[in-house]
Amino acid sequence: MPEKITILDTTLRDGAQTPGVSFSVEDKLALVGTLDALGVDIIEAGHPASNPKDAAFFRKAGALTLGHARLAAFGATRRKDKTAAEDEQLAALLAAETPVAVVFGKARLSDVRAVLGCTSAENLAMIEETAAFLKAHGREVVFDAEHFFDGYREDAAYALEALRAALRGGAASLALCDTSGGGSPDEVYDTVRATARAVDAPLGIHCHNDGGMAAANTILAVKAGARQAQGTLVGLGERCGNAALTTVIPHLQLKLGFACLPDLTALTHAARRAAEIANLPLPEQMPYVGAGAFAHKAGMHIDGVLKKPDTFEHIDPAAVGNRRRLLTSEVGGRMGLLGLMRALDPTLDKDSPALADALRRLKDKEHEGYQYEGAEGSLALLLRRALGRYRPFFELIHFKTIGEQTQGAPATAVVKIRVGDRQEVTAAEGEGPVHALDRALRRALEVFYPQLGGVRLIDYKVRVLEAGDATAARVRVLLTSTDGRDVWTTTGVSADIIQASFQALVDSMEYRLTEDK
Amino acid sequence: MPEKITILDTTLRDGAQTPGVSFSVEDKLALVGTLDALGVDIIEAGHPASNPKDAAFFRKAGALTLGHARLAAFGATRRKDKTAAEDEQLAALLAAETPVAVVFGKARLSDVRAVLGCTSAENLAMIEETAAFLKAHGREVVFDAEHFFDGYREDAAYALEALRAALRGGAASLALCDTSGGGSPDEVYDTVRATARAVDAPLGIHCHNDGGMAAANTILAVKAGARQAQGTLVGLGERCGNAALTTVIPHLQLKLGFACLPDLTALTHAARRAAEIANLPLPEQMPYVGAGAFAHKAGMHIDGVLKKPDTFEHIDPAAVGNRRRLLTSEVGGRMGLLGLMRALDPTLDKDSPALADALRRLKDKEHEGYQYEGAEGSLALLLRRALGRYRPFFELIHFKTIGEQTQGAPATAVVKIRVGDRQEVTAAEGEGPVHALDRALRRALEVFYPQLGGVRLIDYKVRVLEAGDATAARVRVLLTSTDGRDVWTTTGVSADIIQASFQALVDSMEYRLTEDK
Repeated sequence: MPEKITILDTTLRDGAQTPGVSFSVEDKLALVGTLDALGVDIIEAGHPASNPKDAAFFRKAGALTLGHARLAAFGATRRKDKTAAEDEQLAALLAAETPVAVVFGKARLSDVRAVLGCTSAENLAMIEETAAFLKAHGREVVFDAEHFFDGYREDAAYALEALRAALRGGAASLALCDTSGGGSPDEVYDTVRATARAVDAPLGIHCHNDGGMAAANTILAVKAGARQAQGTLVGLGERCGNAALTTVIPHLQLKLGFACLPDLTALTHAARRAAEIANLPLPEQMPYVGAGAFAHKAGMHIDGVLKKPDTFEHIDPAAVGNRRRLLTSEVGGRMGLLGLMRALDPTLDKDSPALADALRRLKDKEHEGYQYEGAEGSLALLLRRALGRYRPFFELIHFKTIGEQTQGAPATAVVKIRVGDRQEVTAAEGEGPVHALDRALRRALEVFYPQLGGVRLIDYKVRVLEAGDATAARVRVLLTSTDGRDVWTTTGVSADIIQASFQALVDSMEYRLTEDK
Repeated sequence: MPEKITILDTTLRDGAQTPGVSFSVEDKLALVGTLDALGVDIIEAGHPASNPKDAAFFRKAGALTLGHARLAAFGATRRKDKTAAEDEQLAALLAAETPVAVVFGKARLSDVRAVLGCTSAENLAMIEETAAFLKAHGREVVFDAEHFFDGYREDAAYALEALRAALRGGAASLALCDTSGGGSPDEVYDTVRATARAVDAPLGIHCHNDGGMAAANTILAVKAGARQAQGTLVGLGERCGNAALTTVIPHLQLKLGFACLPDLTALTHAARRAAEIANLPLPEQMPYVGAGAFAHKAGMHIDGVLKKPDTFEHIDPAAVGNRRRLLTSEVGGRMGLLGLMRALDPTLDKDSPALADALRRLKDKEHEGYQYEGAEGSLALLLRRALGRYRPFFELIHFKTIGEQTQGAPATAVVKIRVGDRQEVTAAEGEGPVHALDRALRRALEVFYPQLGGVRLIDYKVRVLEAGDATAARVRVLLTSTDGRDVWTTTGVSADIIQASFQALVDSMEYRLTEDK
């Protein structure tokens, strides 16, 4: 039986500090669902005292039914001039009503003096009393020992005293934090090992990536005895980010034999979903889960990996739900695609010409920048094309958009379509050309297909694919639509955001009409 | 006197395998200049036998005068069925006429059999004879022991035999390669240490990042005795990339006291230049050199870092030529803003009315969906407005965009502006309305401000602010511009992507003109 490592994800708390990232309450609920389905043990979901949006989230989160994970709220030790019971930020932490409370306190003596402005003894009392207060209110307490490694280097005895104070207060686990992110793997290993000998409690590890070592430091801390790994699924976090759990977990599970997640093959999908929710691209080169993590470009490497996979693949990509991509001759993903196509035609097998055709179409589209993860509507249409089962519902004759610097609705679109031998020209105004185009196309199509009247768009995302060309760069649009019953997502790619949006709009409506029959 | 670590950069060889990256001969010459100015010791600049563009580069490179670096060409050991003198790929390696030749050979026994299809003894002979042949032709030979760590795990004696063969042939240094990139820092440490005891020669280290450990593995290899660190400046490379020298070098130099570069403060500039040559954005969160590596967003962190920099900065950003950024946001503080305003007016203090005015403007804008973290250009203009120091450089009379579903450039924009009492109307086509608008506005402004001629956009990001309204949702645009010397980012928010982009474009040009004085 492999030993269990508890996984604590703090994407919604530390990850929310990432410049450019701002989670709405709905984003937070969606990410909790993703992390829970993945099998993360503790989801640190916000800092209610510092952020009213987090408090609003926790009010809604009470109604969530989670399959596996437990929610945690985050806060500081009590203020030096208040008791725990008087401290408003601890009241906010309790009001979150989470089973787990993560509380951080100072473990570096020089910070106690310079930042808190209190004595070494006062800080220890603050830690102990805060833990005791939260425990008395029924919380499982995780103590985050801030600056633990820097503190240990400065004054090891005091850093350990901070841990012991939390333990006396009733903390269930003690997370050692590399807060400024400058630690080295060997130092982290030695320090965790010494701490495990000095303090008899379950230890956790929380690393930032300022020195580019966060994942390595986390791995070595576990080797040295830590049994709780904290991080953010795709490495979000302030400055250079937190340890990416997508890097840490497969290393612990596949290379070191620990148990972290029930099904590691769900990792890549969860990572892509998390990046979508944060509206950030998942880096192509991201270890384990990036679209290019197992992509081979050099001919010599392709030869090598086909002869002997371990020449250029350190693990089987399928183990983390990723796949090999041979950039000059695509053979990956065949079986997954076959599964999807069998839903349309159960007689297909792996030698069916339609499967080869679908793979070729997919490869061509991916080469153009399409990505069908999370765009199942457009993928279904592509597969229908490969099966010869696609039929267009209308023909576009022309569209035009006009944008102006004016008050009111600043854009107008004109759309002309043909269905059978009938033509329809419609115009609409909107907030911007895409909005106007959406309205005009919808109005034209509803003449022929009144069932589209109930369809509306609920999400619109734009991703710039390559920088460097700036405003002429290619963009990928993801549109999510609903008819009140089903929800589906479609995609389009172009150097022109309007063209890309139009493709996704057309796919959305065609998908709805196709699935209607 | 700190001990010297030789730095070998392979951006132009291993880095050229990055999907989406393709260096022209001119790009290569520019990057060699950047790396040489930075003080890199060896520039591995291509694989002439496998790539005719590399051969062309080496013909031109002969005319280069380098201040510090030496060029290296890369190639394989001789083929099993040819002598070194008969082998065309070794002839191509010699034809590059570089002082250093890097030659790779197999150090894992199972690969010798499965991939090369020859005996263990034949492989050793190939290694030895190739090194001897290159040395006889006056080359300093670096032997890259492919799959050394995997090979050592499989059959340590054979992996060491491969090194000894290269040494017998006259190799000057032996680089241990984690070719499939799956190594762990502790294992790399132990293996390098054992190898240093077994083989009396200068060792190098060459790590790939498939497990997210490349930089950590490189650091620990140096701690274990390696004295040559190979990598790519900003981590380019196949799959998950190679060890990023921007992460490795500061760690070795600042934290471990080795000597790598003559002037570490040139690092950030060189990294940005290298990313620009590769036409890739440098990740904001990249350790040490990213624009966000020392950016602080949470109010608590801003307070902390102003009181005591080492709370959230593991090194002084100036040591690597980077700088601290205090991001202003709803949770960021008054003090951060004051620091920025003092750069414009040193007489301000925390009670100045201009500070209150700036905070009010900022709050209003953030309420509309603006976010100024990472948009320092637009923020500087906002602060100038609060200080009464803003002056507009032009007045927009009108713009119009027309998008069509056609071949070729599908969008046209018309812009009319006034400067003083002169008006200017310009039109331009582009890939989409934003691109057309950018071109038209730039053309109109250059009539009055020719210094804008050198400005170009290098990044364009779009974020949809609230979902649920779909295509009518508000979008935030971030534009990054450069004049070849400075880089700045500006922002715009609107329900209309074109309006939002236009605001950011205007801010970009006004910022450049403002800072010009």
